[in-house]
Amino acid sequence: MINVTVWNEFLHEKSNEAVINVYPNGIHEAIKAGIGTDGFAVKTATLEQPEHGLTEDVLASTDVLIWWGHMAHHKVEDEIVERVHKRVMEGMGLIVLHSGHFSKIFKKLMGTGCDLKWREADEKERIWTVNPAHPIAAGIPEHFVLEREEMYGEHFDIPQPDDLVFISWFEGGEVFRSGCTWSRGQGKVFYFRPGHETYPTYYNETVLQVIKNGIRWAAPSNAAAPVRGHHQPLEVIKAK
Amino acid sequence: MINVTVWNEFLHEKSNEAVINVYPNGIHEAIKAGIGTDGFAVKTATLEQPEHGLTEDVLASTDVLIWWGHMAHHKVEDEIVERVHKRVMEGMGLIVLHSGHFSKIFKKLMGTGCDLKWREADEKERIWTVNPAHPIAAGIPEHFVLEREEMYGEHFDIPQPDDLVFISWFEGGEVFRSGCTWSRGQGKVFYFRPGHETYPTYYNETVLQVIKNGIRWAAPSNAAAPVRGHHQPLEVIKAK
Amino acid sequence: MINVTVWNEFLHEKSNEAVINVYPNGIHEAIKAGIGTDGFAVKTATLEQPEHGLTEDVLASTDVLIWWGHMAHHKVEDEIVERVHKRVMEGMGLIVLHSGHFSKIFKKLMGTGCDLKWREADEKERIWTVNPAHPIAAGIPEHFVLEREEMYGEHFDIPQPDDLVFISWFEGGEVFRSGCTWSRGQGKVFYFRPGHETYPTYYNETVLQVIKNGIRWAAPSNAAAPVRGHHQPLEVIKAK
Amino acid sequence: MINVTVWNEFLHEKSNEAVINVYPNGIHEAIKAGIGTDGFAVKTATLEQPEHGLTEDVLASTDVLIWWGHMAHHKVEDEIVERVHKRVMEGMGLIVLHSGHFSKIFKKLMGTGCDLKWREADEKERIWTVNPAHPIAAGIPEHFVLEREEMYGEHFDIPQPDDLVFISWFEGGEVFRSGCTWSRGQGKVFYFRPGHETYPTYYNETVLQVIKNGIRWAAPSNAAAPVRGHHQPLEVIKAK
Repeated sequence: MINVTVWNEFLHEKSNEAVINVYPNGIHEAIKAGIGTDGFAVKTATLEQPEHGLTEDVLASTDVLIWWGHMAHHKVEDEIVERVHKRVMEGMGLIVLHSGHFSKIFKKLMGTGCDLKWREADEKERIWTVNPAHPIAAGIPEHFVLEREEMYGEHFDIPQPDDLVFISWFEGGEVFRSGCTWSRGQGKVFYFRPGHETYPTYYNETVLQVIKNGIRWAAPSNAAAPVRGHHQPLEVIKAK
Repeated sequence: MINVTVWNEFLHEKSNEAVINVYPNGIHEAIKAGIGTDGFAVKTATLEQPEHGLTEDVLASTDVLIWWGHMAHHKVEDEIVERVHKRVMEGMGLIVLHSGHFSKIFKKLMGTGCDLKWREADEKERIWTVNPAHPIAAGIPEHFVLEREEMYGEHFDIPQPDDLVFISWFEGGEVFRSGCTWSRGQGKVFYFRPGHETYPTYYNETVLQVIKNGIRWAAPSNAAAPVRGHHQPLEVIKAK
Repeated sequence: MINVTVWNEFLHEKSNEAVINVYPNGIHEAIKAGIGTDGFAVKTATLEQPEHGLTEDVLASTDVLIWWGHMAHHKVEDEIVERVHKRVMEGMGLIVLHSGHFSKIFKKLMGTGCDLKWREADEKERIWTVNPAHPIAAGIPEHFVLEREEMYGEHFDIPQPDDLVFISWFEGGEVFRSGCTWSRGQGKVFYFRPGHETYPTYYNETVLQVIKNGIRWAAPSNAAAPVRGHHQPLEVIKAK
Repeated sequence: MINVTVWNEFLHEKSNEAVINVYPNGIHEAIKAGIGTDGFAVKTATLEQPEHGLTEDVLASTDVLIWWGHMAHHKVEDEIVERVHKRVMEGMGLIVLHSGHFSKIFKKLMGTGCDLKWREADEKERIWTVNPAHPIAAGIPEHFVLEREEMYGEHFDIPQPDDLVFISWFEGGEVFRSGCTWSRGQGKVFYFRPGHETYPTYYNETVLQVIKNGIRWAAPSNAAAPVRGHHQPLEVIKAK
């Protein structure tokens, strides 16, 4: 059983009619329902909860954290960002979705600006699997289409991924590295592009399958925690 | 249940007293017993069997193939090497152990010479985990010691690994990239260094844990098989 | 001064009217003229020359070899492939262009099938720079267009590149990893996608700039040649 | 001509007798003298200068910045760290030496804790070249020895390097990834381990050669600066 916490900013879904129509209970509830309970124990947390719902206890019992944010990245307290970062270093997996590319936690983990091109034009996105050996591609077709999505285009200002799993083709002429993985400390990070708030992307079965695969991939490895700092020699050092 | 086939050259263990004493039933049987049956269905195959024990049927039903060879790499038929290669392209995992670095199948998958420095001097090897986020490091300590092993030293002539999981320190002054992963086609390849035939390395619990982790990591992803060759357009192409 | 040898199959340009019109002296001569002499000393070699023009002497004095082939990959002698491979292991750079993806030398260096999707439909290709830090992107715009090219689509059956520099968008709906680098032995390999024989791609200034950048990047590093095989200890090994 | 700025904390060399004896004019002056003027125009900057010597003008005219710090990482102003970070994103190369692993700028660029094991015991370090194809290995032997250095041991808490060039063996039993590269934005980052302030490491010709190679490798690529933000379509998008 993998303990998953789905974090959502949950603001668009309370103020924007178009978004409310698509996600009446919030993106977090759609993702929670969509990934189901087969092997996962799923909770949610949102920005306006105390400590953004990410207390020490919640994080300590989270194996994989999913992150969706957009308009209020700046409202996430730095202290909570540090807390999430520390947990990733300790082995908690992190899945960053769509506009989460500009979240404080993603930028901190990447070390780069994380900016990109974007456009809202109801255009077609076709996502291609470019690493069919990767567990995140399990059960995913060679390519699949989202008929209407926001465009994200290169150059996406991220470190070169450890593994590049998906590349998107956009109707308007751009490409994007849509499925990227990195290790950070003992933790694993997966960025997955789709999911603009005005489209029903998180009801798409293939998108949900990718997220489920991502959860399994990002679950903690449980290697021994590295010990750092001053270290006694393991072998005799000769005087010089 | 992951179907594992442990392939062993099985020659040293029939001719060399020192090796017979350590592995009276062959390295393959020691590995088979060592990895156990928790999640694995394990068979063995050896060089002197018909088709080296690697018939089309055996490979078709193998999820992960483990390979140990040393003195008779040249006796492995090219046809069987092609067969194994094809299965890796289709998604079968491959774990190459120790002197398997010079096997035909490993050299074919790497595209390089795969040579290295070596020395048999009953010396100490200490293996360090350098990627504690990797599933192959699950349950593995920061470092562990094999009191006597053959030395393998850099430069190891391999492509840069996708992931470097372990680095060895040798008493005689060398280092070695001891745990390396690559994807090839839909398949995953893991090279793990230890296991000289005159030492009881494959009875070491940590070594066995690494191999078990490697099997789980290398199991097929079951992404859709890529279709290649001539391709009809998915979008309308304007005349020019 | 970097010594460059441009190798071309040079068959289409002797038999196909459409190709002759574009490359009357062969693709090799177009590339030779296009990359110029600023820092480069450029020779050519072709399939029908003795030893395919790739004698021991020629290769020994080549820093970077450029490879274009298509319809006659099978006519390249295995002995010459081995010779080129050996030189790459020793440090010679190799730039593989377009349909060279299916050459014996590229497949041998990659260890995979190197197959892909393709289509000849006079369609638009837009090439995006996804690693603007890479020296192969020097002076290259964010994106550039080839109005008519052959389509190559994913999944491209290659090992994950060390560096992914360019991704192509195709009018018909596909994407492709168009600029990929790997190290092999002491040598460096760069694959660059464009260059179908019926289009004037190798007269395009941006394409030529990429090839020139690739030559500079792929030139030998001149690190010490690794010594392999049996190795005396560098430190005292204690008896056990 | 590559414009290099060598930044040094320059505190140990004003207060600690042992360090003063080795680097009477500071580590920065030793490095400046050591790398010479063949292709480089070298300036220095130190912590106690106004703006730590890293004014907008200085950084704007710096192609590659070298960073050595140890006891006063916390005294580097956040504003200057942001300024350096911005320049790396724009293409300035950064070479981080030894204890600079714990500098604010390195931690910000890596996104991880950057901690490690350490020990001061006058012990032997042997540095092995594990990527002889890499330009940073140009002219460097297979291995070289520093008779007395501080030990740094794994796990080094960094993102997996794009390229791993050197691995250190330590007399006391540890290994360390000593030469690591990453791209960040348009910039390139090289971490090189040796250089404890009480040892004459920066007079060692091989160490200096590595730093010189690193400067050449890290120099800006001069690819087009990516444009990000809202983007007009490059192709016609059909109404849906």
